Amino acid sequence: MRLRNVKNKDEIISNSVFVIEKPEDYKGKWNIVFDNDNPIQIEIGMGKGDFIIGKALNNPNINFIGIEKYDSVLARAVEKIPPNLSNLRLVRLDALNIDKIFDSEVDIIYLNFSDPWPKKRHANRRLTSSVFLEKYEKIFVDSKVICQKTDNQALFEYSVVNLSKYGYTITELSMDLHNSKVENNIMTEYEKKFSARGDKIYYLLAKK
Amino acid sequence: MRLRNVKNKDEIISNSVFVIEKPEDYKGKWNIVFDNDNPIQIEIGMGKGDFIIGKALNNPNINFIGIEKYDSVLARAVEKIPPNLSNLRLVRLDALNIDKIFDSEVDIIYLNFSDPWPKKRHANRRLTSSVFLEKYEKIFVDSKVICQKTDNQALFEYSVVNLSKYGYTITELSMDLHNSKVENNIMTEYEKKFSARGDKIYYLLAKK
Repeated sequence: MRLRNVKNKDEIISNSVFVIEKPEDYKGKWNIVFDNDNPIQIEIGMGKGDFIIGKALNNPNINFIGIEKYDSVLARAVEKIPPNLSNLRLVRLDALNIDKIFDSEVDIIYLNFSDPWPKKRHANRRLTSSVFLEKYEKIFVDSKVICQKTDNQALFEYSVVNLSKYGYTITELSMDLHNSKVENNIMTEYEKKFSARGDKIYYLLAKK
Repeated sequence: MRLRNVKNKDEIISNSVFVIEKPEDYKGKWNIVFDNDNPIQIEIGMGKGDFIIGKALNNPNINFIGIEKYDSVLARAVEKIPPNLSNLRLVRLDALNIDKIFDSEVDIIYLNFSDPWPKKRHANRRLTSSVFLEKYEKIFVDSKVICQKTDNQALFEYSVVNLSKYGYTITELSMDLHNSKVENNIMTEYEKKFSARGDKIYYLLAKK
């Protein structure tokens, strides 16, 4: 996600108790950060944070970690977090380094409105490419669960096929999430925008 | 597929060399019918036959068998078959009896615009329900391939999830077949009608 520069982003980030600045220090021991052994769910590419903050508010017994590559976007998310939301942390990180900060400790990975990287030569940059699925193998605890939402048809088609080929079972799928039986959906910023203009939201849950 | 009654349907069917009237006689030995050992592909619910006839014309080294439940529909298909199309046969049969006429000899099953059976209590009647997938296990030769086309979103979503849960890998998927990279598509009667009015055609290829 791209965003106009936030001038005081460094200050916002370094002053926040919610941002973990050296996430690699907690590889394999994120339970220390949360001071409990609750399950950990992460969102890769959390944008301005509406989804992960909503998840954390609704599920106090699950720990959530939002990952975002861009400083300015991360700063915007930080500003939205209600004080005392003890089950949420944020990390600034390129998704390619995801296996450098987690080790066998993630329950669910959320991928919401990820960059579709439409060109075939960039396919490996899609967050459901084998490059990333291989990294996810190392960070998942036991069972592996990936939950994806997107408005991009090509990315969705690619994800179903690639997850399936990689050994995941597609256990839930909707080609129109907002008119489906899926409950308790929390909308991202993109999702609000796209669905307001009538776009359909694609959704899948894959387990391995 | 339903169709208005064809008056002389019995005559058309019984006079055709393409219709096998006692298909159970050839269970496990359809190669005798075709007098060769070429692979066998079947379409369950062939309707008026445009798809399976087109397939047979384009692939002389593959044997095709079209299955249809309704006499009147079968009669319409019979009338369309060009003479000397030696790699095609038709059978009147309820899909529930598919395992009574084949045994370990089918390479690919085509399911085109099958009845979606929208009510949940009728889910077992869908041709990608476990009831049918279990029957297909017995009729496939080695590798199992199911190719589905439909305009029905709910049936498509159901098929992806149910095939995946049953152990199939979704190897190809398009949510807009006519604007995809899938080549050599042969349109069914429904497909021509639906796509002419702008409906998207969903497509998947599943292997086990």
